[in-house]
Amino acid sequence: MEKKGLLYEGKAKKIFKTDNKDELIVYYKDDATAFDGQKRGQIDKKGIINNKITNCLFKILEKEGIKTHFIKELNKRETLVKKVDIILIEVVIRNISAGSLVKRLGIEEGIELAKTIIEFYYKNDELGDPLINRYHIEALELATDEELDEITEQAKKINRVLRDFLTSKGVDLVDFKLEFGITSSGEIILADEITPDTCRFWDTYTKQKLDKDRFRRDLGDVESGYMEMLQRITGQDKV
Amino acid sequence: MEKKGLLYEGKAKKIFKTDNKDELIVYYKDDATAFDGQKRGQIDKKGIINNKITNCLFKILEKEGIKTHFIKELNKRETLVKKVDIILIEVVIRNISAGSLVKRLGIEEGIELAKTIIEFYYKNDELGDPLINRYHIEALELATDEELDEITEQAKKINRVLRDFLTSKGVDLVDFKLEFGITSSGEIILADEITPDTCRFWDTYTKQKLDKDRFRRDLGDVESGYMEMLQRITGQDKV
Ligand SMILES: Nc1ncnc2c1ncn2[C@@H]1O[C@H](COP(=O)(O)OP(=O)(O)O)[C@@H](O)[C@H]1O
Ligand SMILES: Nc1ncnc2c1ncn2[C@@H]1O[C@H](COP(=O)(O)OP(=O)(O)O)[C@@H](O)[C@H]1O
Ligand SMILES: [Mg+2]
Ligand SMILES: [Mg+2]
Repeated sequence: MEKKGLLYEGKAKKIFKTDNKDELIVYYKDDATAFDGQKRGQIDKKGIINNKITNCLFKILEKEGIKTHFIKELNKRETLVKKVDIILIEVVIRNISAGSLVKRLGIEEGIELAKTIIEFYYKNDELGDPLINRYHIEALELATDEELDEITEQAKKINRVLRDFLTSKGVDLVDFKLEFGITSSGEIILADEITPDTCRFWDTYTKQKLDKDRFRRDLGDVESGYMEMLQRITGQDKV
Repeated sequence: MEKKGLLYEGKAKKIFKTDNKDELIVYYKDDATAFDGQKRGQIDKKGIINNKITNCLFKILEKEGIKTHFIKELNKRETLVKKVDIILIEVVIRNISAGSLVKRLGIEEGIELAKTIIEFYYKNDELGDPLINRYHIEALELATDEELDEITEQAKKINRVLRDFLTSKGVDLVDFKLEFGITSSGEIILADEITPDTCRFWDTYTKQKLDKDRFRRDLGDVESGYMEMLQRITGQDKV
């Protein structure tokens, strides 16, 4: 497998082609953005930490029967993945109220939700990733009804697996964002990343935030939050 | 039936109690607001026109088997209605792209939608009536899943009846907002109003706007748009 040209540079990662048309290399950067790209910065070693965390969680999910794009970790910042056509829906799963949910519904932060909330956002930076419903998804032809049902089922299962695992590490899985894609053989699989950039992680006992909210809200000590999550998830305390 | 004290004053109507605990009087004002109340004004005779239009359309819907709060028109601005507990969901039905849909999805105005889009908004002025989904509705306990299914079915049927009627009058029903409520006997019925304040009406041939968008967008001649819709719907050309 040989690394070829840059396919896409996003806000947190670069995607490179390989000599295999069905495989890509993901390179994790230290760049951080928030509020639709209005706030920008760097989080030291974030790329290394996020590569490790995603791969560790994707392996756990694979063991539980969830299909993911993960193939092989290549080095500290790079992983070989299955190329997919990304479905332009960000699937957000919420167990505890926080972030935009609190603002949208006018409720308090930190309330355990009686039932897990699932939301679909249109993955479109220009439009600010708006909340959408099934009718919008059909009108935009982002996914069929059957695909959406499958994504929803997978999202719920992923939530159960991750919650169980993180609970055992003393971490509350508050909410998180998933992206799914379709492989060249037509299968829907989990793609992108699962990291402190895309999840809210709270220490179960102190309720301390161990995720990107430290960056968003200038809570300080951003790197050590990411390092703490690396340690809890992988057991590794150095990068 | 005797008119008693003011129960509630909203942006477009006043609601009065009566000596019957299951009946209310709706009084239609000329006040107009837009953009979450940031824009305010008056539209001459709007109250009289909207009272007539709502009652005419509610009678047509009743004939087609839709249950509404309508009991009896009392005078130019007042109508006797069944009191309900309003379900705090604004149900929006869209046949043609316009308004916030165009902004949310980044699509053009005036596109006939392949399938009717239904949206739920949380009826909460302080929060700016945010878009919500079924999970939010459950979390906020705004309605049960069964109630939501019934509301959705009724909304679709109302759309079919109104579209057929308006098409015969040379009017495109672009989109509209409905409110439902629960009677003292536990029945879900259509409440509130159906007027140029709460619908987008376009002339089928010229595509001229005959609704509150004339006020929102300062297109001028607001009253004559409302009068034109009164004439098309009721045949009446004076108030
Ligand atoms: N397996 C994959 N195949 C193709 N594209 C992917 C895959 N996994 C993730 N992507 C896409 O690659 C990009 C990752 O870079 P990122 O910095 O997260 O971008 P963005 O700024 O769009 O969030 C995203 O657009 C994501 O949807
Ligand atoms: N049959 C009914 N019983 C009780 N309340 C009603 C009924 N029909 C409409 N309403 C409520 O009365 C108010 C009507 O006044 P309006 O000026 O439209 O208020 P708003 O500013 O809340 O839109 C709305 O809050 C509406 O939900
Ligand atoms: Mg991303
Ligand atoms: Mg109203």
